[in-house]
Amino acid sequence: MNVLVWNEFRHEKENPVVSDIYPEGIHGAVADFLKKDGHNVSTATLDEEEHGLTEEVLSDTDVLVWWGHKAHDEVEEDIAERVKQRVLDGMGLIVLHSAHFSKIFQKLMGTGCDLKWREADDKERIWNIDPTHPIAEGIGQYIDIEKEEMYGEHFDIPAPDELIFLSWFEGGEVFRSGATFKRRNGKIFYFRPGHETYPTYYHEDVQKVIRNGVRWAENTNGPKHQYGNAQPLEPITEK
Amino acid sequence: MNVLVWNEFRHEKENPVVSDIYPEGIHGAVADFLKKDGHNVSTATLDEEEHGLTEEVLSDTDVLVWWGHKAHDEVEEDIAERVKQRVLDGMGLIVLHSAHFSKIFQKLMGTGCDLKWREADDKERIWNIDPTHPIAEGIGQYIDIEKEEMYGEHFDIPAPDELIFLSWFEGGEVFRSGATFKRRNGKIFYFRPGHETYPTYYHEDVQKVIRNGVRWAENTNGPKHQYGNAQPLEPITEK
Amino acid sequence: MNVLVWNEFRHEKENPVVSDIYPEGIHGAVADFLKKDGHNVSTATLDEEEHGLTEEVLSDTDVLVWWGHKAHDEVEEDIAERVKQRVLDGMGLIVLHSAHFSKIFQKLMGTGCDLKWREADDKERIWNIDPTHPIAEGIGQYIDIEKEEMYGEHFDIPAPDELIFLSWFEGGEVFRSGATFKRRNGKIFYFRPGHETYPTYYHEDVQKVIRNGVRWAENTNGPKHQYGNAQPLEPITEK
Amino acid sequence: MNVLVWNEFRHEKENPVVSDIYPEGIHGAVADFLKKDGHNVSTATLDEEEHGLTEEVLSDTDVLVWWGHKAHDEVEEDIAERVKQRVLDGMGLIVLHSAHFSKIFQKLMGTGCDLKWREADDKERIWNIDPTHPIAEGIGQYIDIEKEEMYGEHFDIPAPDELIFLSWFEGGEVFRSGATFKRRNGKIFYFRPGHETYPTYYHEDVQKVIRNGVRWAENTNGPKHQYGNAQPLEPITEK
Repeated sequence: MNVLVWNEFRHEKENPVVSDIYPEGIHGAVADFLKKDGHNVSTATLDEEEHGLTEEVLSDTDVLVWWGHKAHDEVEEDIAERVKQRVLDGMGLIVLHSAHFSKIFQKLMGTGCDLKWREADDKERIWNIDPTHPIAEGIGQYIDIEKEEMYGEHFDIPAPDELIFLSWFEGGEVFRSGATFKRRNGKIFYFRPGHETYPTYYHEDVQKVIRNGVRWAENTNGPKHQYGNAQPLEPITEK
Repeated sequence: MNVLVWNEFRHEKENPVVSDIYPEGIHGAVADFLKKDGHNVSTATLDEEEHGLTEEVLSDTDVLVWWGHKAHDEVEEDIAERVKQRVLDGMGLIVLHSAHFSKIFQKLMGTGCDLKWREADDKERIWNIDPTHPIAEGIGQYIDIEKEEMYGEHFDIPAPDELIFLSWFEGGEVFRSGATFKRRNGKIFYFRPGHETYPTYYHEDVQKVIRNGVRWAENTNGPKHQYGNAQPLEPITEK
Repeated sequence: MNVLVWNEFRHEKENPVVSDIYPEGIHGAVADFLKKDGHNVSTATLDEEEHGLTEEVLSDTDVLVWWGHKAHDEVEEDIAERVKQRVLDGMGLIVLHSAHFSKIFQKLMGTGCDLKWREADDKERIWNIDPTHPIAEGIGQYIDIEKEEMYGEHFDIPAPDELIFLSWFEGGEVFRSGATFKRRNGKIFYFRPGHETYPTYYHEDVQKVIRNGVRWAENTNGPKHQYGNAQPLEPITEK
Repeated sequence: MNVLVWNEFRHEKENPVVSDIYPEGIHGAVADFLKKDGHNVSTATLDEEEHGLTEEVLSDTDVLVWWGHKAHDEVEEDIAERVKQRVLDGMGLIVLHSAHFSKIFQKLMGTGCDLKWREADDKERIWNIDPTHPIAEGIGQYIDIEKEEMYGEHFDIPAPDELIFLSWFEGGEVFRSGATFKRRNGKIFYFRPGHETYPTYYHEDVQKVIRNGVRWAENTNGPKHQYGNAQPLEPITEK
């Protein structure tokens, strides 16, 4: 499977706290653990030409992982549209943390995708509420993260197709932290944790969830539907 | 309740078959039966200034009913965005028939909203599969429509929050004909029937469903959520 | 509308803490605030003949509110089945707090309906995550309850049709606190708060939610479907 | 994976039309094509001791496939309960055709599971409406079945978690033909076709769907949740 990890890659260049944690960038860290599953993993970042998301690259990608935060607006409109179209055509999409506000996620959801947030070292506990889901394979009752940015409800998304994780935050909020959405041939998984100033992507269970998510999001070789004018399959009586 | 019926209003001006059926336009016919419920009903059409959808008009509208077909592209981008924003802020939206391909529906769904279609006088039978839904109030097991345009699956929408009606077509297709979607504070109901060359909007049960839909879509005075940076509601321990 | 509030009514007779809070029983307190909506409200309790749930009483009931805790097993099997049948036939059902473990809720869910619990004066904050739902009408972003019993995930229910409320608990848990389910012609609303040793049913917002729930659960006069052998509606070709 | 195919196995003994089509029983035919996937497949039937569903057999079964029709009532209550409990504990369940009326399906759904039916050689066309679902892998836009028993809406089930297939019937009905449900740790797939007097289980696409369903229904090694009294994970302030 060809997996592409996309990262805005700005915090790492500007903030030594972040580059200390992720010396190869967040994309590097995520790509590293995804390679363990034998995928063909590559990376792309905002400042590359066409943000590293050419038609060719996208058509070769089975699952795209997306991290962005402070430069969502710099993603060009037509490239965001291109990614959306590729998802509808069957590419899986894993939306991480602050990518809730990315153009691509907003376009696919149809809502603003806003939420409450706070950077205050909240403890986060991610409860697993769907014990049958392949994305929760190998995870216990909950995942504890010692310190994270808080994201709180209301999370402005459509009701998800499946709700897998719910977060509890020390400061008094809850959040729908793991949720799936289907859009035509594309499978989408949103997963909350991963603020750039914490080493969250080294957390074993967080890695496990993302690895499961990538496997789950792979296209299933389902029907390619035809749209448009269609001849009748059965006789129609004259009226 | 203030209800606004929006119509593209082009077929009626160009095709005498359509204007014979709907001498006051499709919007006129729909507005007529909605008035029976005591709503304050007005209409707007594509060729009016700002398509009749000024900020002021929209902010006074509780539920918007939308019919369009051949001129979706002529709806200006920023006005489509304005309508979308108003739906997210709490205006109900009833999407009729070929409005499946309207910019506003596509934006709110996040998908292409394509389908199969055929103009061949198919008989349509609309089965009611959710006997608890207020939109189905007063409707029997199914609605028969003698002749209609066929719409067939795959209908490229997200899995609806609620699936109320399923259509059977004489030529061999099925279709998810009545479906609801929530987007932030806005309630959306898609209802399939209503091709311009048939007198479908005079069908008593079709009218009943749309009248129910308008009542259902009214804003519920739920919480106005705050988004953005949020102070903790509980103490956070130093770490 | 005829509303029947059913209560086990045992704690109130055995524990002065409870009878001090609810001198007329939990059913009395709930019936009191439901009367404000002009419903015809009556009550029934476990120790009455047929638990006060005769065929006649049930067939006259539009919405049944159920509170039980320590004596679920004493509800006779055939009466639980009778209530279930009446729900399937269109009676609304409001399931409160520890009634998660009632026979009637288990039968309608098909699962065990188990959960984590703790009586330790947890603070509870009930977040509203569906701003469009009529059950949330008039409620703010969240409801704070100073002290309550904790219920924690995993809550062993099917994925609800609609998820309206999520609880945050001081001790570190989350819970799906407000959820709707449809079963044939019956609408069901589960609402978490209401442990017998706290004055929760005097909380204005808790009352508002239950009042909204009762209105929402009323039968919608949808189609009464016919089941069994059915003649074809269209000609079938000989094969 | 250990797969158990359960069949009532009565029609085959009593009706030569059926035994001509399925000389090894429906269970034999289904087991045959499931073996192609390398599973360890065994069978059990109603007239065996404990219906072939001992505690030991069930605890060794990963996915159970169930076909029954005329003798649902002869399945002993406590064995139906045992199967239900095993599903909740993580055994997958594939419910075929007339097993919609089996005790085990009714118990897990919480509804009556009734429907309309007709034995009249209807043509059936099963439309695929979820192109992302692994159960639809390798299937085209629809499956045509020349002659089948008709099942029509309303199908008295809870709204499914996922709706994959919709059937069109020649006589004018539609039906939700492929649907998934989760119940605690168990995954359930209902698939409509398979009346005993037609050779439906030799249809390649029908086989493909059932093979996909069995793979999908396997337990995912998700969390085994603890229920009951729980110590706080965070300190609770005295109040």
